[in-house]
Amino acid sequence: MSKAIDFYFEFSSPYGYFASKKIAALAEKHGCTLNWKPFLLGAAFKKEGTNSLISYPMKGPYSKHDIERSSGYYGIPFKWPEVFPIFTVNAARATLWAQQAMPEKAVPLIHAIYDKAFAEGVDIGQVPVVLEAAQSVGIDPDTLSENMRAPDVKARLKDETQAALDNGVFGSPFCIVEGEKFWGVDRLDMMDAWLTRGGW
Amino acid sequence: MSKAIDFYFEFSSPYGYFASKKIAALAEKHGCTLNWKPFLLGAAFKKEGTNSLISYPMKGPYSKHDIERSSGYYGIPFKWPEVFPIFTVNAARATLWAQQAMPEKAVPLIHAIYDKAFAEGVDIGQVPVVLEAAQSVGIDPDTLSENMRAPDVKARLKDETQAALDNGVFGSPFCIVEGEKFWGVDRLDMMDAWLTRGGW
Repeated sequence: MSKAIDFYFEFSSPYGYFASKKIAALAEKHGCTLNWKPFLLGAAFKKEGTNSLISYPMKGPYSKHDIERSSGYYGIPFKWPEVFPIFTVNAARATLWAQQAMPEKAVPLIHAIYDKAFAEGVDIGQVPVVLEAAQSVGIDPDTLSENMRAPDVKARLKDETQAALDNGVFGSPFCIVEGEKFWGVDRLDMMDAWLTRGGW
Repeated sequence: MSKAIDFYFEFSSPYGYFASKKIAALAEKHGCTLNWKPFLLGAAFKKEGTNSLISYPMKGPYSKHDIERSSGYYGIPFKWPEVFPIFTVNAARATLWAQQAMPEKAVPLIHAIYDKAFAEGVDIGQVPVVLEAAQSVGIDPDTLSENMRAPDVKARLKDETQAALDNGVFGSPFCIVEGEKFWGVDRLDMMDAWLTRGGW
């Protein structure tokens, strides 16, 4: 049976964006199924007593620079969004709805939203931007607009966020493979080695 | 003129220990001079409003496991010290004294102390353990014992710790090369690329 990689990501996370460009190839390399799991990182910050990276006096400026530098290192375009941190409830709900209603379009939608945010620097906190991203991958924006605020979609985002917390997810990106946790785009190499060697 | 890598490390930092095994080869590869800079990370935690990694509800258990896993990944032996976090004032003072009084023995002393802590799992918070490490690299323990508590050595540790803060050092290990900052043993690959390509 193939292993599953649970890939937890927050749409406001630049490192999550970088990882979103790399995770599919890694999963494919190891014949793993890949579960894309949007969640709201704020809940984890609250539980941990931590804050957005950029809010810290020294780690903040460092991280801003490291994110820009990571763009060059990974060869992935990057632009700061107009507003940061980003309000990502709409983006996450849109994704959760697509995953259920039209699963074949869900991953393209994730990439389209992330690209809006961090390749184009547009504020994906705005519903029209999320709808535009959806339209670009062939999702009808009116259908999405009607459905993304449905009670069951709202409930699902709460449940998914709670499940992430229950599974010990405290950052983005965050992968779990057979119970083994890897936090950060800078742990993908270690996850690669772990999957190759079957652990150690 | 050769570039200089300032390698900031806290003796209580397992990731600092791993990096201490790798940094010399990296410096040599790029013809960089290497400055070993012990400091007290607690001051940075205070300024940042952060805490020891292991103190966080989710990040704590994750980090403990990641540290053990990193040992296998890097192929560097690791054992948790009896007491953790470690009281490292004595280890840092001993190093600062050796750097001035017998510079050729300072780097061997750093490795000996780190090995006591994280390869043998002994509590380097205890002065006799620091003296034992010193003796193992040919430093007379009585001379060290007399000198490591001298006012100028105490003052130097305060100054070095303040200088680290002033330079934006908020974690361990932490490298600065020509103003470019790299935090974490997991940024050594990026620093390697940065030195190879001359930045980007």
